[in-house]
This record gives sequence, C-alpha cells and structure tokens, in this order.
Amino acid sequence: MPQKPSIPKGTRDFSPTEVARRNYIIQTIKKHFEVYGFQPIETPSFENSETLMGKYGDEGDRLIFKILNSGDFISKVDDVTYSSKKSSSLIPKISEKALRYDLTVPFARYVVMHQNEIDFPFKRYQIQPVWRADRPQKGRFREFYQCDADVVGANSLLQEVELMQLYDAVFTDLKLKGTTIKLNNRKILSGIAEVIGAKHLLVDFTVALDKLDKIGEEKVKEEMKAKGISEAAITKAAPLFDMSGSGLEQLTQLKSLLKESEIGLNGVTELEEIINTVEDIGLKTASLKIDVTLARGLNYYTGAIFEVSAPEGVQMGSIGGGGRYDDLTGIFGLKDVSGIGISFGLDRIYLVLEELGLFPERLDQSIDVLCINFGEKESLASLKLVGKLRENGVKAEVYPTSTKMQKQMKYANNRKVPYVILIGEQELSNAQFVVKNMTTGAQETFSMDNLGSFIEKLSS
Amino acid sequence: MPQKPSIPKGTRDFSPTEVARRNYIIQTIKKHFEVYGFQPIETPSFENSETLMGKYGDEGDRLIFKILNSGDFISKVDDVTYSSKKSSSLIPKISEKALRYDLTVPFARYVVMHQNEIDFPFKRYQIQPVWRADRPQKGRFREFYQCDADVVGANSLLQEVELMQLYDAVFTDLKLKGTTIKLNNRKILSGIAEVIGAKHLLVDFTVALDKLDKIGEEKVKEEMKAKGISEAAITKAAPLFDMSGSGLEQLTQLKSLLKESEIGLNGVTELEEIINTVEDIGLKTASLKIDVTLARGLNYYTGAIFEVSAPEGVQMGSIGGGGRYDDLTGIFGLKDVSGIGISFGLDRIYLVLEELGLFPERLDQSIDVLCINFGEKESLASLKLVGKLRENGVKAEVYPTSTKMQKQMKYANNRKVPYVILIGEQELSNAQFVVKNMTTGAQETFSMDNLGSFIEKLSS
Repeated sequence: MPQKPSIPKGTRDFSPTEVARRNYIIQTIKKHFEVYGFQPIETPSFENSETLMGKYGDEGDRLIFKILNSGDFISKVDDVTYSSKKSSSLIPKISEKALRYDLTVPFARYVVMHQNEIDFPFKRYQIQPVWRADRPQKGRFREFYQCDADVVGANSLLQEVELMQLYDAVFTDLKLKGTTIKLNNRKILSGIAEVIGAKHLLVDFTVALDKLDKIGEEKVKEEMKAKGISEAAITKAAPLFDMSGSGLEQLTQLKSLLKESEIGLNGVTELEEIINTVEDIGLKTASLKIDVTLARGLNYYTGAIFEVSAPEGVQMGSIGGGGRYDDLTGIFGLKDVSGIGISFGLDRIYLVLEELGLFPERLDQSIDVLCINFGEKESLASLKLVGKLRENGVKAEVYPTSTKMQKQMKYANNRKVPYVILIGEQELSNAQFVVKNMTTGAQETFSMDNLGSFIEKLSS
Repeated sequence: MPQKPSIPKGTRDFSPTEVARRNYIIQTIKKHFEVYGFQPIETPSFENSETLMGKYGDEGDRLIFKILNSGDFISKVDDVTYSSKKSSSLIPKISEKALRYDLTVPFARYVVMHQNEIDFPFKRYQIQPVWRADRPQKGRFREFYQCDADVVGANSLLQEVELMQLYDAVFTDLKLKGTTIKLNNRKILSGIAEVIGAKHLLVDFTVALDKLDKIGEEKVKEEMKAKGISEAAITKAAPLFDMSGSGLEQLTQLKSLLKESEIGLNGVTELEEIINTVEDIGLKTASLKIDVTLARGLNYYTGAIFEVSAPEGVQMGSIGGGGRYDDLTGIFGLKDVSGIGISFGLDRIYLVLEELGLFPERLDQSIDVLCINFGEKESLASLKLVGKLRENGVKAEVYPTSTKMQKQMKYANNRKVPYVILIGEQELSNAQFVVKNMTTGAQETFSMDNLGSFIEKLSS
C-alpha cells in the first residue's frame, strides 16, 4: 500500500498564493534594504556544531537541529561513551553539523572568516530560513525565515536613525500604517539598576520590568521582590511604572531619575539624540515611542534597543526588533567590532497584512491570459501568439489539451485569469483572435497583426 | 581561546557580489517561468524520512542527510537494536526527518497531499536548495539550488514544445547564445533494445550507450558485451553509433532501424512532432539536436528526454535537463498523473556566465551614491538628501562616521560607487551639494531644490 504522505510538524508547504504573498513582503523588505545601501550575503543552511553550540544558552542548544554524520557513524563512537547510553554524550560523537538557529551567529562567523575581503563599515542583509526544534504553536514554526539588516564597524548614532527610517519605509510601502517603534537603551536599564542599588540584579530586574505590559505593575513588583530586590529599591524605581507624556517629558523624568548614574545619563543622551534627529527628518507612517520597559534579550544588546508593534487593534506580538551590540564577533576572535541590526518578522507581518486585507489583489492573479485549446492547428497558432505576448512580459499560456471548452473555462476561472483568448477555426482562417474579458463577459476581436493594441489594453 | 571559525566542507558562503550574480540568474529563470504560466510553490527543507527514503536507490539513501531526533533520543532505542551497534539499524530509531535531496519527490508528495486544492493541469515551479552528502568536488556541493518547472496532469506534446521554448527564452535572456538542446525519447531506447533482442538488458544497454560521448564507440561496445549483450545485437545497433545528417535525416534512419518495434516508432513520431513544431515556431539562440544516446536516469523518464549543453568551447557538463515521466505521484498513491519537467543547473550556469564574462556590470555596483560625512550638521543634511534619493529608488547611503575624507573615498572606491556627494559647511550654507563622478573625476554643483536634475542624470 502506498504511504499516505505528510510533512513534519512545525513545517509548512506554501501554495502559489502563499508564495506570492510571502515574496511580496520579502521583495519589499529587500528593495528597501538595498536602497539603504545594505548588501546581501548568504551562509550555508548548516554550520559546524561548534559554531552554533553554546551561543544561545542551554535552552538554545537543545533547540538546535543536529545532523547525523554520514556513513557508519556509530563505529566511531568509543565503547565507554556508547555504553553510557546518554544522548548528551553521544551527540558530539555522532553529529558534527547543525542547522542554522538564527542569522546573527552565522553572520558573526562570516565577518570573522571574511574580514580581509570586507570593506568596513559593512552593511549586510540576509534573508534566509532558520530552524528551531521548538514546540510548534500558532505563529511559531520549526522552519521560518528571518530578514535581518546589520551594520558592523560603525558606532555613530546615524545608524540608529537610519534603521528607524528603514522600518518606517518598509511598513509604509506595505501600506501598514500606524506601526509603533518602541525605543529603549540598555544603558538606561543599567543606570536604573544602579541608582536603585540593584546593579547585581540587573537581569532579574529587567526581565521582570519587561513583563509590565502583560502582567501589570503589581505582579511585576511581586516578581522583583521574589528575586531579592528590596522594597526600597522598588519604591525608588516607581517612576518607571507610570512614565507618561511626550517623549520630551519622559526624557526629562528619566534625567531626573538617573541624575546620579553616568551610564544612565549617557543612555538618555543617546535616546534624546536619536529621537530629535528622527523627528527632524520625520517618519511617514510609523511613530516613535520611548519604552523603558523594553529589554529583548538584554545580555545581547549594549546600546539602543527597538521593537516594532503592529497598528492598534491588531492582536500580534512584535513584528520587528533589534538593537546595538558592542561585541558580536568577539566569540570568534575579532574584538571591538560594534554592530547594530534590525529584523523583520515575516510570518507575523504576513498575518497582520492578511488580517487587515492589505495584500494587493494582483498577487492572486497568476496568469494574465489563457488561450483556449481548440485542437492541433489552432493551438499551434495560439502558441505563436502566446510567444509574442510572453516576449512582452505578459504571463500567458495555452491550455495543454483540446479538452471540453467548459473544463478549460473552469480552469480559467479557478486561476482567476482576467482574459481568455479564443482562436477557433474561423479566427484561424481570418488571422484574428477573440478576447473574452472574464469579469464583464465582453468579447472583442483583434487582428493577429495588431497585437500591440491588445497588449496596450492589458497594461492599462 | 576563541575558535577559529570554518564552514562544513561542500558548503559555501556567498559574498554580496556572488549573491547578486546568483540572484540575476534565479530572477531571470523565475521571470520566464512565470511568463510561461508556472506558479511557485515551496516545501519544507526537511521531510519525514519515509517520504524520501527508498526513492533514490541505495546510493541515494546513503547520501540523504538525516536529522537527529530532539530530546533524549537514545532512551527510545530498544536494547536489542542498541546492543547491535549497527548504524543502519539505529538510523530509523534516532532520526525521523531528513533534508530534501531533490525537488521532485517533495513535489510529488505536495501534489498528492494538496490534490483537492490544485487546479490541474498544474504548472508549478520551485527554486530551493537541496542537500546531498556527496563527496565535494569542483562544481559539486553538499548544498545547492535546484530550479525546476514541471507540468502535471497534461500529456499533450505541447508541453514538450513549450519547455524547449522556455530553455531558449532563459538562455537567450542570459545572453548565453549557442546552447544545444539534445532531445531523445525513452520509447526509442526501448524500441532499440527490442529490435536488437536485448529488451531485458535495456538498462545496461542504455547506461553503456549514454557514455558514447565520453569513452567512444569501442569502449561502449566492450561494456555492452561485458553486460551480456550479444555480438549480433551490438552489430544490429551499429547505426546508432554514427547517426548523422539533419534531424530529418536522423529521423529517417531511426524509422528504418525501428520499423519492427511499435513502441520505438511511437517514440520517433513523438520526436518528429516536437521537432517540427519547434522548428515551425522557431528558437532564438538555442538549437535542437537529436541525440539517441541520451538517457539521464532512464528508469525515471517514460517519454521525451532532454539535456542542454553550454555553447561550444565551454568545458562544462549539462546546464539543464529534464523529461516526461508517466507516474510521478504513484509512490504516494495518486495514479495516472503524467508529468513533464525541466531543471536549470544554477551552479553550472554561473560558472559558464563567469567564464564567458556574461554577468552584467551593474551587478558589481551595490550602491549608486555615497554621501561623504563631514560632521553632525552636514550629515543631517546628507541624511535628508539621501532620504529623497531613496524615495526615488536610488541606492544611497551616508558614510556612517565623519572619519578622514581619504578613508571615506577609499570605501567609495572599494564599493565601486559611481557618484559621491559632498555636502561641506559651504554647501550647507548655500543649500547646495557637489556631485563627484568617480570615473571621470568631474565635479558638478546642484541646488538642494533641484534634486530632480541629479536623479535624471543618474538614470541616464
């Protein structure tokens, strides 16, 4: 009995319409990446295990897909390890390669390996799939695309400003108006931990603070207490829980709160400069908002932190995020290369555009013209006509067989073809073709010699 | 000590120039796929092992990359299997998923799984990477792209004709003139085996015949003898070794050779019809050639077989190939779906275009304009100017820091930027900008209000 086919959980097949929609988003992102001067690179789908392992924490290590060595892999396992029958001891003996978990570590590896060919500052973008052995759930997959743009080797705040503009440009182009770019700075978080006397509890403090949106002030305070942050410290941090007013007003509040912390004030100055410059230049549809609770993988970022949220009313987590990191390539031996990057969440952007009905209609239309097949002689004439249409960039095809007209028309309807061409015996002898508009039902006859006027009609 | 990074053998990093060149080929192929009415699908990078195993022969099974199960995989292996310490017995117990080996089997799986959503005849294309644990060598990698277009559910010869046109259209667009499309038909090979009385040795016969180009007539005959094909049979097949003349003449010779085989004559008729139709419509730069020695994975194809070779003078194997197969989806339980497909060899096409210098120069140019950074105020003005250029689709950037002019100009040279914009203190106060043509060295001053005339200059 033949197998009933299926695909691994957490993976997806993409139909023509889905591919067209995904490509629409990817091409839009790509266009703006390039217009902003970013250059594409691509790295292999799998890396040597030692490149990836230990870079994402214990949880990350577990979620990395490992590839089994080829050949008689088990004969290379020593008897002691084998008799232990422990997965963790066996993995390094039977697997030397692993699927990419994100694009950042492979990028760091790339920069170090190719440092002599790269012209720094290096603005690179990379749009490729990554794989994680996560528990699949709505909007979370085991194979998904990341769309990243990073600048390495430049530490002026111009980068931060440009990346805000880039977010704005992409989402404006996708007609996704009303996104909010939330902005914070790791130095502000460090400063707060310093002034409230919880410097050693920075991570616990920010992890708790990061949840303010979701669990509310009381629960955040409880979590802080549970982590050993004193009542006094929490009281001192109180202004954070109700920061309000314009960006300018919030900056003033922060300056007062952080007046005793050099690093904190430093962060406020950076934030201020970014906001002022972005406001001076102006954004088209996005708005910028200070969010001092924003942390995003704190241990990673060292300066600016950003996150983009979908327009109000759409229930969706962040659709993009990023920040500045001062030592990306250090793990591979190249010190002092400052980097800053942003990422676009393809799957979530897809869901948002779908919910808001923002995909252009043309994406559903896979061909412009279908020629009905009336038989051998007629289809040869159709093939010649279609050849000329194709040379003009028109997506056209001849129905493959001279089956019943009704079946061919049904196919045209299913594929949402706007125009059907009919070349029957009579048209053939008159060197003409009939065009049927599938929306209105209207028919028009053209001379084969006058293809130009039909092509003009198509593009209007 | 930090690790010295490397990548797995047989895999590649692609630099910005390489990505641009690869995308140039991919986009050209894709454009023509779409103009010919093919629709894109994408399938997951890994499939359930049972979907792939057993579909590519024993050698294929060995070359499939297997993914280790997540979690404590070894605890799920029973003691008997574990104590055998045999790789082949362990694989199915510790690995349930495997990386895609080609695009054809996943496509067959897709068609069967989605048969109720698909409008047949289904013209699909798919451009995605595949992975093989092959020994890496020049031009052979462990990760590489396949670019496939197939039609399933249509068995008229119109498909064969269109696919020849498609090859011609793509290679013409890539400026790769003088390709040869070699054409054969499995039925002819069957017919020959029949008339020489070696029907049961069809595979051995065609495998040997397929080597005529490489090892010559004598060696082919020796191999046939070694495989048990009689002297008499080989003598009968002699006309095959020196088929000559025009396509028409070769068809006549074949008809005479195959006059006693129904299936053989059937194949000749099909070949004849394809050639006549293609000649009637005409190809732009490719030429069609009958090659009765062409077999290409014989067990797979049931009708037409094609292969494209690079222009004469370029040492390169086939740069594309394909054929008709009558029962692709049978392995997954869907009978009687005839298919025909072609594939483009991205890596080899890349090498040919490189050797012949056919990549457009513009691919090396990653940005159109670089603004020199003279400091805070000046760079803000530059950022505004660059913003307007970007809105007009110009790839532009401001150098990230106000470092030494010399360093910035060196960067512009390395990135092959055609125009550099200078906005210094003086220009700023006059609301002007200076454009330096990096090829000629000429400088021209524009008013900030008159950006249009500069953009016009750029696009001319």
